[in-house]
Amino acid sequence: MRDVAVIGVGMTKFGELWERSYRDLFVEAGRNAMLDAGVDKIDSMYIGSMSPGLFVGQEHTGSLMADYLGVAPCPAVRVESACASGGAAFRSAFIEVASGISDVVLAGGVEKMTDVDGAMATYALATAADAEYEGFIGATFPGLYAMIAHAHMKKYGTTSKMLAAVAVKNHENGSRNPYAQFPGKITIDAVLNSVMVADPLHVLDCSPVTDGAAAVILAPVELAERLGKPPVRVIASAMATDTIALHSRKDLAGLNAVKVAAKKALKMAKLKIVDIDFTEVHDCFTIAELVVLEAMGVYKPGEAGPATLRGETARDGKFPVNPSGGLKSKGHPVGATGVAQIIEVVKQLRGEAENGRQLKRAKRGLAQNMGGSGGSCTVHILEA
Amino acid sequence: MRDVAVIGVGMTKFGELWERSYRDLFVEAGRNAMLDAGVDKIDSMYIGSMSPGLFVGQEHTGSLMADYLGVAPCPAVRVESACASGGAAFRSAFIEVASGISDVVLAGGVEKMTDVDGAMATYALATAADAEYEGFIGATFPGLYAMIAHAHMKKYGTTSKMLAAVAVKNHENGSRNPYAQFPGKITIDAVLNSVMVADPLHVLDCSPVTDGAAAVILAPVELAERLGKPPVRVIASAMATDTIALHSRKDLAGLNAVKVAAKKALKMAKLKIVDIDFTEVHDCFTIAELVVLEAMGVYKPGEAGPATLRGETARDGKFPVNPSGGLKSKGHPVGATGVAQIIEVVKQLRGEAENGRQLKRAKRGLAQNMGGSGGSCTVHILEA
Repeated sequence: MRDVAVIGVGMTKFGELWERSYRDLFVEAGRNAMLDAGVDKIDSMYIGSMSPGLFVGQEHTGSLMADYLGVAPCPAVRVESACASGGAAFRSAFIEVASGISDVVLAGGVEKMTDVDGAMATYALATAADAEYEGFIGATFPGLYAMIAHAHMKKYGTTSKMLAAVAVKNHENGSRNPYAQFPGKITIDAVLNSVMVADPLHVLDCSPVTDGAAAVILAPVELAERLGKPPVRVIASAMATDTIALHSRKDLAGLNAVKVAAKKALKMAKLKIVDIDFTEVHDCFTIAELVVLEAMGVYKPGEAGPATLRGETARDGKFPVNPSGGLKSKGHPVGATGVAQIIEVVKQLRGEAENGRQLKRAKRGLAQNMGGSGGSCTVHILEA
Repeated sequence: MRDVAVIGVGMTKFGELWERSYRDLFVEAGRNAMLDAGVDKIDSMYIGSMSPGLFVGQEHTGSLMADYLGVAPCPAVRVESACASGGAAFRSAFIEVASGISDVVLAGGVEKMTDVDGAMATYALATAADAEYEGFIGATFPGLYAMIAHAHMKKYGTTSKMLAAVAVKNHENGSRNPYAQFPGKITIDAVLNSVMVADPLHVLDCSPVTDGAAAVILAPVELAERLGKPPVRVIASAMATDTIALHSRKDLAGLNAVKVAAKKALKMAKLKIVDIDFTEVHDCFTIAELVVLEAMGVYKPGEAGPATLRGETARDGKFPVNPSGGLKSKGHPVGATGVAQIIEVVKQLRGEAENGRQLKRAKRGLAQNMGGSGGSCTVHILEA
């Protein structure tokens, strides 16, 4: 296997982008990534997109995007693992470069979610759950994560205030991210007084519905060194799955796919979690950030909430989490999210994070992307 | 890159399988492939599925199938390239084994198409075309391929009888395939007198709407040699794209993605097309088989139709095409098709094709799988 680096990144602003279409979004991100990398052709392309069939009536994303990005007949396929589609696309691109079959590979992600109404968006997202046993009886994601939150509260004493602290911290970070959908700062009281979506999750505990795209260019390290930009090495890629439905799990307050994927990634990189400087994690709901940090071994079960309240995961804390603003503030165009996480890690490692968002210590970063209620998870570790 | 072999195959019968669900189909095929390979665990899994969101309201196929196949926390992702999703999944599995990151990888494909009515199935399939410029104005696939057929007829003098000869030949082959949806033999007159769907394509020029799944197990050649079954080597994997919409192409009577993918695959295998003994090609409509054979260089443009009429592509002809019965007779569960093609090639190379379908000369076979109206294409070459 060859060593692999990220040599270029590009993304759109995240938000309700009614003036731009599914293809427009991807082309903007892809073109920006190619410009950043300084390449005018690519050898292959993977695109994470969760449900363009339901959101915009378009499948065959690989062909469409190769055509509109102007790179056909370049191989191009869509990769789907619900909200971990972007992470899975990045992993496929990593493997293709590592294998030696291709040199310059684009990993992108895109979702256009606001062209349908809220009920349809909620239905489309619910197809990431078990359609026959969860979707059929009307379960949607706020409800599924609310069950995880209740289990965590009961088992470990986690409080609504701890959940709110996740949102407050991520909006503080997002207020410094020019690509964020909701850059406004919020307070603990604002979260606790916001409308209840699925008890105990308020609307300010939930990530938004978002349009957006993100893309990165991968290449062998030796080729990267010949190009201008400081290459960022991908030192680990791992993926794991779990039961798709919550009812089949032994422990509702843990996430086994995250645990397994993080363990495999750390083993591949020959590192321990304490060797990582910061992380971008999948905070689709505030409770998710806490459970993910515990599953990855950053904190023992039940300790992520109190640590967040103490400010340990803030930008200037001992282990910064979601310096980009996370899904909560930056937005969550589901197929693009995993790639946008990689972009934040790359920017931090390059020392290019905007508006005072740059971390002091950023030699190694980890990106954790999750599908459904944790039915799939990717973990990548990058090093400057 | 490591050398890669197929060590096991399994599929469901293709047809209107109302008593079995999306997940049931995949599990049956996956389990059969693992039993055939003699493995009880896999390291990773790729599943081709075109539009489960629209067909059965279920995305997140990787997590679902890993769970129900009993292999979680094994990494598992869905790969989508419209009707080339199966070929793309096989290619991803090939690359992962070749890279050295995993040893035993499952490549599967599945589609459950008959739980919706015909209009919905036609809409779901049309999402493989350009939704904004083809789907929006009501174009569906019979219409798009009818335009290709008209262009080919006008340019090369291809006749309806030549198209019908493709269907007759493929049903003759399919009559010997116990997994075929429509194993009945048909005649030229039956095709020409069948109802017109989109001039010049009759209903018997069209592949059917089908439920089904297929799976194969890949492993490094050295591991394959240690297991029992005669390994079948994957000596080439290539993919290419073209404009998704027909209106952007220079030549409606050719398929550039097929041409590019076949050329790259032959280069990778260091072979010429005359070195290939037989092929499984993507005959979603009869015209497709002819244009594909010409694009791959088996015949010069305009010569595939007359050759088919002369019987050259029959099982006992000089270049057998679609000995399985093809999409036309075997059926076309879109995500599964590319993997089912690989299964026929493997069976022929192993000398295991049922009911007198076995070819006399089968040392090297090629599988060509195509998405949309040729917007994407995969080509794989396997050797006994």
